[in-house]
Amino acid sequence: MIQFQCDYNEGAHPRILERLMETNFCQTVGYGMDEYCDHARALIKEACKSPDADVHFLVGGTQTNATVISSILRPYQGVVCAETGHINVHETGAIEHSGHKCLAIPAQGGKISAKQILQTFANYYAEGDQEHMVQPAMVYISFSTEVGSIYTKQELTDIYAACRKYDAPLFIDGARLGYGLASPECDLTLPEFASLCDVFYIGGTKVGALFGEAVVITNPALKKDFRHFIKMNGGMLAKGRLLGIQFETLFTHNLYFEVAKHANNLAMKIRNAFKAKGFNFLMDSPTNQQFPILTNNQIEQLKGDFLFSIWQKMDDEHTAVRFCTSWGTKPENVDKLLAAIEKL
Amino acid sequence: MIQFQCDYNEGAHPRILERLMETNFCQTVGYGMDEYCDHARALIKEACKSPDADVHFLVGGTQTNATVISSILRPYQGVVCAETGHINVHETGAIEHSGHKCLAIPAQGGKISAKQILQTFANYYAEGDQEHMVQPAMVYISFSTEVGSIYTKQELTDIYAACRKYDAPLFIDGARLGYGLASPECDLTLPEFASLCDVFYIGGTKVGALFGEAVVITNPALKKDFRHFIKMNGGMLAKGRLLGIQFETLFTHNLYFEVAKHANNLAMKIRNAFKAKGFNFLMDSPTNQQFPILTNNQIEQLKGDFLFSIWQKMDDEHTAVRFCTSWGTKPENVDKLLAAIEKL
Amino acid sequence: MIQFQCDYNEGAHPRILERLMETNFCQTVGYGMDEYCDHARALIKEACKSPDADVHFLVGGTQTNATVISSILRPYQGVVCAETGHINVHETGAIEHSGHKCLAIPAQGGKISAKQILQTFANYYAEGDQEHMVQPAMVYISFSTEVGSIYTKQELTDIYAACRKYDAPLFIDGARLGYGLASPECDLTLPEFASLCDVFYIGGTKVGALFGEAVVITNPALKKDFRHFIKMNGGMLAKGRLLGIQFETLFTHNLYFEVAKHANNLAMKIRNAFKAKGFNFLMDSPTNQQFPILTNNQIEQLKGDFLFSIWQKMDDEHTAVRFCTSWGTKPENVDKLLAAIEKL
Amino acid sequence: MIQFQCDYNEGAHPRILERLMETNFCQTVGYGMDEYCDHARALIKEACKSPDADVHFLVGGTQTNATVISSILRPYQGVVCAETGHINVHETGAIEHSGHKCLAIPAQGGKISAKQILQTFANYYAEGDQEHMVQPAMVYISFSTEVGSIYTKQELTDIYAACRKYDAPLFIDGARLGYGLASPECDLTLPEFASLCDVFYIGGTKVGALFGEAVVITNPALKKDFRHFIKMNGGMLAKGRLLGIQFETLFTHNLYFEVAKHANNLAMKIRNAFKAKGFNFLMDSPTNQQFPILTNNQIEQLKGDFLFSIWQKMDDEHTAVRFCTSWGTKPENVDKLLAAIEKL
Repeated sequence: MIQFQCDYNEGAHPRILERLMETNFCQTVGYGMDEYCDHARALIKEACKSPDADVHFLVGGTQTNATVISSILRPYQGVVCAETGHINVHETGAIEHSGHKCLAIPAQGGKISAKQILQTFANYYAEGDQEHMVQPAMVYISFSTEVGSIYTKQELTDIYAACRKYDAPLFIDGARLGYGLASPECDLTLPEFASLCDVFYIGGTKVGALFGEAVVITNPALKKDFRHFIKMNGGMLAKGRLLGIQFETLFTHNLYFEVAKHANNLAMKIRNAFKAKGFNFLMDSPTNQQFPILTNNQIEQLKGDFLFSIWQKMDDEHTAVRFCTSWGTKPENVDKLLAAIEKL
Repeated sequence: MIQFQCDYNEGAHPRILERLMETNFCQTVGYGMDEYCDHARALIKEACKSPDADVHFLVGGTQTNATVISSILRPYQGVVCAETGHINVHETGAIEHSGHKCLAIPAQGGKISAKQILQTFANYYAEGDQEHMVQPAMVYISFSTEVGSIYTKQELTDIYAACRKYDAPLFIDGARLGYGLASPECDLTLPEFASLCDVFYIGGTKVGALFGEAVVITNPALKKDFRHFIKMNGGMLAKGRLLGIQFETLFTHNLYFEVAKHANNLAMKIRNAFKAKGFNFLMDSPTNQQFPILTNNQIEQLKGDFLFSIWQKMDDEHTAVRFCTSWGTKPENVDKLLAAIEKL
Repeated sequence: MIQFQCDYNEGAHPRILERLMETNFCQTVGYGMDEYCDHARALIKEACKSPDADVHFLVGGTQTNATVISSILRPYQGVVCAETGHINVHETGAIEHSGHKCLAIPAQGGKISAKQILQTFANYYAEGDQEHMVQPAMVYISFSTEVGSIYTKQELTDIYAACRKYDAPLFIDGARLGYGLASPECDLTLPEFASLCDVFYIGGTKVGALFGEAVVITNPALKKDFRHFIKMNGGMLAKGRLLGIQFETLFTHNLYFEVAKHANNLAMKIRNAFKAKGFNFLMDSPTNQQFPILTNNQIEQLKGDFLFSIWQKMDDEHTAVRFCTSWGTKPENVDKLLAAIEKL
Repeated sequence: MIQFQCDYNEGAHPRILERLMETNFCQTVGYGMDEYCDHARALIKEACKSPDADVHFLVGGTQTNATVISSILRPYQGVVCAETGHINVHETGAIEHSGHKCLAIPAQGGKISAKQILQTFANYYAEGDQEHMVQPAMVYISFSTEVGSIYTKQELTDIYAACRKYDAPLFIDGARLGYGLASPECDLTLPEFASLCDVFYIGGTKVGALFGEAVVITNPALKKDFRHFIKMNGGMLAKGRLLGIQFETLFTHNLYFEVAKHANNLAMKIRNAFKAKGFNFLMDSPTNQQFPILTNNQIEQLKGDFLFSIWQKMDDEHTAVRFCTSWGTKPENVDKLLAAIEKL
């Protein structure tokens, strides 16, 4: 059975395991204060051209989202997000558990717009009895989004301007940042991206690492005591070096974006194969996740040999499914999938 | 500089890294539902002689404590613990963040007694206006404790009886469980231990793994929807297999206890060396942490070559310090420390 | 200026103030354990024909909603409610502050249906990875709703059956219960109502009292330690007798429903006056809140003499507004409003 | 049975009820934005000589404590308080429910000292790994304390200086502020008191009102969006006028302090009677609560005619009990108690 159901089917890029082997007996202090973490932080700040940013390493995405958001909001404030946003639908209420409402607005292809954001804030401030309502106070978007789409430079510029108009920090969930920035359709560089938000994270779990997310805080107002938040939220790894070593490796010789390109290239092959056969898609995704719409019969046909996700029922006959590629996807497995698509 | 300041100075036992290498390209489903996790769960249940237990893997200790405790308590209830308990002093209020009060009682050598626990519950139920006070509803202890001590079989039996008298689950923090059970002074086996509480965890981070804690729930009443709690608390690792592979390895050929014995043996050498020179200890610890009391001068003398923790100031002249050994401590490094102790 | 903008413009029904005067120097114990509260509880249980119910008195609605909901849900669970539900829009995130997500579904005229509820639960249980999503675990509705509508006996019967199918308690916000049950269009008695949910409250603040809400818990599984929840949530009034005296008065000689009828009758006059002039309504409400749609000019015309709420902009020219009556509305003030409507 | 067990046995000072009657049919807007509240705020600011303070009205003490504290702290921060502090022992964990740890320090006669506060902060900042511990970030004291004692001007000046040294707001629980400031042994005026902290409240519930606490925020940094906190915590009374009318009355013709003096005078009579008979006290209280130590027999003797609180067991034979007076205590009832004391 060949697995395409998610982008964390395999372990880590081999160079990462090698580095873990090489450093295994080196002694370091704990909790991310070691030299590997220091080096990884330096490499990331350089890659982002953000010399004054604070960089912190956490283990996973849900934890990172809850930690960042709870570090920004006061108790009566909420986070504006897409209805399809990961924090709104797939984190078992981690944001609400930390006391905050997700102020979800309708998404178009996984994205929300500057106009919607402006409207949300304007509605709140237009009402008389503001103290009776959750105050929108930050904005959360994903890049690439949960359905593979990416914001253009113009869209992101507009969103950031909208946020600044209302003094609301913009936080970007970059669990799949590599796939987004490495997409052939992306018109943003990492430094540009870093300059168009207040805090974001560079996802490692889905882009070559065993696990790990690197939070980059560019807005000085959001930096204070962030390590307390990490610890309180259970995200401070005792052997923090493991995160340092992984991000050091990913940000050496551009490995992070190399693995992302590998995945995107294979995803484009899958996209093209479905397109060539005339299939429709839930979303025209330029990244490592592809969402073709299949008939129930076609799903049956494919699922003998391949694992993929059932994403969204379209009607009684049709369902959108998800195929993911990753740093670890083997080209020969994609070839087998292409052959199967050909036969549908 | 030779490091003894904690038990997570190094990476992981080499067999673990080997297994990660071997399995790196195997494809699995995520979130701990893979075959490595299944196998690790089976091995742990067998080692505990608890065939009906539920076993879950989390990443770190603070996260595990907060997750287990918040899965047991109702909002107005608190957890009885030692004043020196990790949850009470070194988790940045993670328990309070989840809404619960630590009902801390004085510890003797890191331990609390059945008598104290009974008194705490009796005091609560003796008062008339119970609804004005936090209701004690579970008990948390550590094994080995934060200062290296261990409970005897009799002590644990009495504590568990006290808990059951008040229908209060007993949760044991086993971040250093291996070192405790492998101590020459321990009169408990793992199955006995597992039968004397409602839920506990087997610490991996400090006992040979890169990271990871295995929660073992023996009380059926505490099992429901525990995976929801893990996810909500940000503890569900996407590549859950990493935890399965590590615990599979640790519970094969008794590796978990082998590495613990290694650490304990070296710690006993350090203990004996200090004892032979007439030093006093904060605690007479039979496990991998040793707390000799040194003069300021002696601390200065040692800290040129060794890293160790400043633990507790005793008076203007004396301070208790901590030396830890681990699975990864090299005997030659201990020999160097012994030589230095000899010269104090 | 004559005020119709809410149903708490005045103090309390005069009989309540008289009783407070009469009892002012009587000494009682605190926190709702006094004889007035005991008597009020007995009267309410009798009125509900629920001899085994638990009855508790709290001060206000938001507090009551947060207290009841947090007493029912486990941390990873959420409450299904209408998008227009008070808890979802006008409580400054009190539910999220207690850790729970409002699982809001579209409302029709302020109401949700059994079908929608069944679908919400079915969707949750149909998905594979339930632990990644907030678990729907109770249902909240309002009676009368935030826009004045009421559920029929059949609708409520169906909703309760849907809840029981999924073992999800049904909680009814009765801040305006009196106006709902006293409506000429209501086909439910109080005992029937009480038998069609697990917990509800009888609103006093908006129906004749100075303040106060009486929670009636009919489902035995929800009774345990409820007083702890009240205290923890800051809802336990020191001089609890004040609540007892008020509800005692309201449930003597049917006063509670008398005042509701008074308000409804006056509201019907307002409704008929607008209808007679051909106005449309946001909702055809059979209770004390009326939502006619006016032009901007008409609003200007009325607002010199009357205070009313701007409720919802319909288009550039039209806005739905709210007129409320209450136990304290004077018929001569309604007559003045009718005259003004006549002139529109 | 004559009741002395608490200071909220009766209703409210008659002038308050009269004013509620007089204003009952006046129409006002809700939520504390009415003219009675405005007037009460002005009177309180004048009495405090704090023209720039923000004044807010809440219903009860536990609610007020939780609201103020959660408005000040960030999630990983805690509140320094006495072990005997109300928030630490008698609020069912309301502070922990809002996510914060009570950093309790030993009390002497209900009070804590500047020295202890300085030491608590110094200990925190002396440790290396601050992010592993709850950060002390504000201080809570009660005036008068839970056992009737009061701070001197010098003590309060020193405490406030200690707080400012660490930028930690000082919050004073004034549930019994009237009794404290009106004590013959108090060397502080209300304006002095107001200038020696950042936020405090003027307790109404125990000092003449039906209910109500007036929060006075003098530190501008703590004012922002406080009404959101009130609403979110369920403390915003719909008919906010009820609080305005009560505090307006209490701060007219010095009524607040008149009723406090009445209670203190009667309490001094009780104190003197016990002293004259050679009784010891748990505390030498100069306010309305008295804590004589009685034998079990003496308790039996008194409890046929009087209700009082069992406070603290001293040994097998002796128990400290509490007698409270209030605005409503009748001199003739005190005379009966004095006669009974005489016979002990």
